[in-house]
Amino acid sequence: MVGKKPKRVTARVPRGFVDRSASDLRAQDAMLAKIRRVYETYGFEPVETPVFEYTDALGKFLPDSDRPNEGVFSIEDDDEQWMSLRYDLTAPLARYVAENFEALPKPYRSYRAGYVFRNEKPGPGRFRQFMQFDADIVGAPNVSADAEMAMMMADTMEALGIPRGQYVIRVNNRKVLDGVLEAIGLGEEDAERRLTVLRAIDKLDKFGVEGVRLLLGKGRKDESGDFTPGAGLGTAGIDVLIEFLDASSVGVVHSAAFEPKENPKLADMKGGVLRKMPATLVHNKIDLHANQKFSDGEAELDQIRLLSEMAGYGPDRIRIDPSVVRGLEYYTGPVFEAELLFPVTNEKGEVVRFGSVGGGGRYDGLVSRFMSQPVPATGFSIGVSRLMTALKNLGRLETSRRTGPVVVTVMDRDRMADYQAMATQLRNALNTDEAGNPTEVPVPVEVFQGNPKQFGKQLQYADRRDAPCVIIQGGDEKAAGKVQVKDLALGKELSAQITDNAEWREARAGQEMVDYAPESPDAMIAAVRAILSRQSGGKG
Amino acid sequence: MVGKKPKRVTARVPRGFVDRSASDLRAQDAMLAKIRRVYETYGFEPVETPVFEYTDALGKFLPDSDRPNEGVFSIEDDDEQWMSLRYDLTAPLARYVAENFEALPKPYRSYRAGYVFRNEKPGPGRFRQFMQFDADIVGAPNVSADAEMAMMMADTMEALGIPRGQYVIRVNNRKVLDGVLEAIGLGEEDAERRLTVLRAIDKLDKFGVEGVRLLLGKGRKDESGDFTPGAGLGTAGIDVLIEFLDASSVGVVHSAAFEPKENPKLADMKGGVLRKMPATLVHNKIDLHANQKFSDGEAELDQIRLLSEMAGYGPDRIRIDPSVVRGLEYYTGPVFEAELLFPVTNEKGEVVRFGSVGGGGRYDGLVSRFMSQPVPATGFSIGVSRLMTALKNLGRLETSRRTGPVVVTVMDRDRMADYQAMATQLRNALNTDEAGNPTEVPVPVEVFQGNPKQFGKQLQYADRRDAPCVIIQGGDEKAAGKVQVKDLALGKELSAQITDNAEWREARAGQEMVDYAPESPDAMIAAVRAILSRQSGGKG
Repeated sequence: MVGKKPKRVTARVPRGFVDRSASDLRAQDAMLAKIRRVYETYGFEPVETPVFEYTDALGKFLPDSDRPNEGVFSIEDDDEQWMSLRYDLTAPLARYVAENFEALPKPYRSYRAGYVFRNEKPGPGRFRQFMQFDADIVGAPNVSADAEMAMMMADTMEALGIPRGQYVIRVNNRKVLDGVLEAIGLGEEDAERRLTVLRAIDKLDKFGVEGVRLLLGKGRKDESGDFTPGAGLGTAGIDVLIEFLDASSVGVVHSAAFEPKENPKLADMKGGVLRKMPATLVHNKIDLHANQKFSDGEAELDQIRLLSEMAGYGPDRIRIDPSVVRGLEYYTGPVFEAELLFPVTNEKGEVVRFGSVGGGGRYDGLVSRFMSQPVPATGFSIGVSRLMTALKNLGRLETSRRTGPVVVTVMDRDRMADYQAMATQLRNALNTDEAGNPTEVPVPVEVFQGNPKQFGKQLQYADRRDAPCVIIQGGDEKAAGKVQVKDLALGKELSAQITDNAEWREARAGQEMVDYAPESPDAMIAAVRAILSRQSGGKG
Repeated sequence: MVGKKPKRVTARVPRGFVDRSASDLRAQDAMLAKIRRVYETYGFEPVETPVFEYTDALGKFLPDSDRPNEGVFSIEDDDEQWMSLRYDLTAPLARYVAENFEALPKPYRSYRAGYVFRNEKPGPGRFRQFMQFDADIVGAPNVSADAEMAMMMADTMEALGIPRGQYVIRVNNRKVLDGVLEAIGLGEEDAERRLTVLRAIDKLDKFGVEGVRLLLGKGRKDESGDFTPGAGLGTAGIDVLIEFLDASSVGVVHSAAFEPKENPKLADMKGGVLRKMPATLVHNKIDLHANQKFSDGEAELDQIRLLSEMAGYGPDRIRIDPSVVRGLEYYTGPVFEAELLFPVTNEKGEVVRFGSVGGGGRYDGLVSRFMSQPVPATGFSIGVSRLMTALKNLGRLETSRRTGPVVVTVMDRDRMADYQAMATQLRNALNTDEAGNPTEVPVPVEVFQGNPKQFGKQLQYADRRDAPCVIIQGGDEKAAGKVQVKDLALGKELSAQITDNAEWREARAGQEMVDYAPESPDAMIAAVRAILSRQSGGKG
């Protein structure tokens, strides 16, 4: 743009993307630190992959996108390979593990927080860039690893301050669902329709039973008139599935009161978790237990239930629930979902449960897509923004305002160097302890760098930044070897009490004159310390 | 992929992108925290923008890319607007400030760390995704803000442990350069060539004086045979520029020993920093000081020098240097660069200074591209990976290995629930203090979740993870109400001393048998605590 007048450009954030403010970012940092801590106490280590993957390595596992490239941002590289921005953190992890298989300890426990991208039609509450925070164990063949993931998810909810009873980790198994689908005549060869069925069931929270019935049958028209084709099941099949989604109709049973000292073996406890069968199946004399997948899946659910209960995670925290599906195609066994139970009002004004803040499951096929050997894996993903919204609702988000900066004001623009020096003296003094080490919480100190012409604007700025105090040195103060230290909070308090204008000027509300010379800043530093201490509730 | 056999995909990270390991990420976190702290003590607040911007909002300011879209990753959105991945963090900040101008305090001090993307030909050490950590003041018209940025950059280097003398913040001014260019006949109307000249000068570190001479003249062929066209200057012009780049030939003068109590006014100190003029100009009787831009630029450099020296940042830390250019097109005034001075060996085996780890400058035109009013701004950017490499070279990178997980091994796979419960007991005990609050550093505890068949593999795994100890309970221990706690470090020490196999088995190196029952885990917890304490050098 050198040398020619640039034409005006409209400043706007791209559709479906958002900017994020200081308080939002600080609250998120505090939240991520708590999650990270839980993951680390379970032996997980951080790892990070780039935002791009080769499109073929990502696979096409995205929910609601059956056509290639729909749902993802893709670019053709100059060597004609297609790259895509990751749409989740699981597919890239699978690629990473496969690429570094020999170098990694097995099982490989890792976690990662990062942005993922969905090339969706932007809409209210629908973002095209959002953060997930995942944990995964790769190389863990047994259901005990799935149970551990569910427990760690429960621990994470509690570490964030979500009270027991306000969340539940709901667990199901894709094998159980596969068994049911086979029983109603939808076998493995019907891959496309099975996927449509899974995605329909996954919409239970969103569209309710009637909506799911439509999606299982002929299809559903949404409010905007868009039509989603259904799975084309008949009424009998739909009835079975709908019945099956209801935990009470399949008789999910948890131990009423588990006693750890009984210490039963898993083998002694099998075959209890799904007690009843949907009436429609019973009516048609179809025995789900004769289906191998269903039986395997049920046995795994039994083990998860037992392992959880023995570790002290009862059905108030980890609960078997046949309606959990998860929309992603790559799950092969147990699937789980962290649901928050407290009520919120949705955009239609209805009071609903807050709902899912994350989930996961077993994906035994994802790493082995790249390998000549099976690599079993399980993990979960937390939706960071959803969870932040939830914590905000619960009043559990750390949104404490930080102290604003101590502002050194500019009375004489030729003396910037003096003001700069004052700021440096204050900054050094307030941010190091007696041994010269950095103090825990930083105290910001700055010189006013705007146009110093109108002094009122400098005070407005300080106010806007929540400055605890400002430093003022005009010609008179300079000549007298003084600075003024003005306590902005006290100033506001006092001026609320003073009604008379002359009295106010007299009192110079909250203002204090202290000795200052470049080589002896101690009185100024002490005065600022006293104000900071008073404002934080300590003793001056 | 349901129901059909997936074809094998090759696992490979895309060209020019990298995966990052736990130790790398932890060292980076520690480094970013130190940088963030410095920025916060100067009153800067975090803000984050998305990775995408509309292409027109980003502008085309990238160095080494004159054609549209070269150098950036761009995608056409479904409403036919082009979006690009940000190539730096400055252009997005300008968009953000313009979009939220009324809501932001002015001056607006902000910082942000984030990935940026360059669609470059990948090569050794050239990455297409890398992190920058920026700080900017928008709405700061005066050179005092530029001086403050330079000082903050110096503070940042020292906060990271880079000793004084090992770094320098070099400062120049685009106006000074513009004046010189005008003096050799390259006016504003020659925008393209001026930019080519700036970029040529910016390559001084990389190609040396002879390389820059070629780029200023007819052009330069690199080792691969690729030809970069030059600016087409004649020998006289090239001579002037080359002379001008050398601080000694233009007589840069800093105060030898600055005394803060003298407290001179800026106005009294003008016109000192560039004492001499290039001999070629003198020979041709061209007086640069007659050029308004040159004089303005020199006056600003004088002020920066004075402000820095008065705040105690002498020429060992902040130094005027006419060879600093910065490759980005949008700078309009002071520019600065943080250079690390210690020697490293480059890929050609030559010993060179480490060089730049970041820089910045004033960009008064960038926000106002979107606005109907001028919005002056200044800021800088740190190259996070470059800086990490530098700190690694200096031995200043925090790479301390964390304690690995306490591993509860699996002797009997039917008793996973018991092992899980042991892990939960240890995890809770080792990670909370007596008041039930989380301890500072997490102690990881995990159950072995791999295939438990070969016990030796479990011990190998524990070893690989740097486990401090493992917990073992087979049938015999269970029957006796015991667990074994095996100190892996002590085990290694002892087995190094023991040469006889039988003796080794007898000694059960580092192994200790302690009481354990599910309801009384205290002896196990105490044994693990003792091992952790011993290994961290404390007293058991």
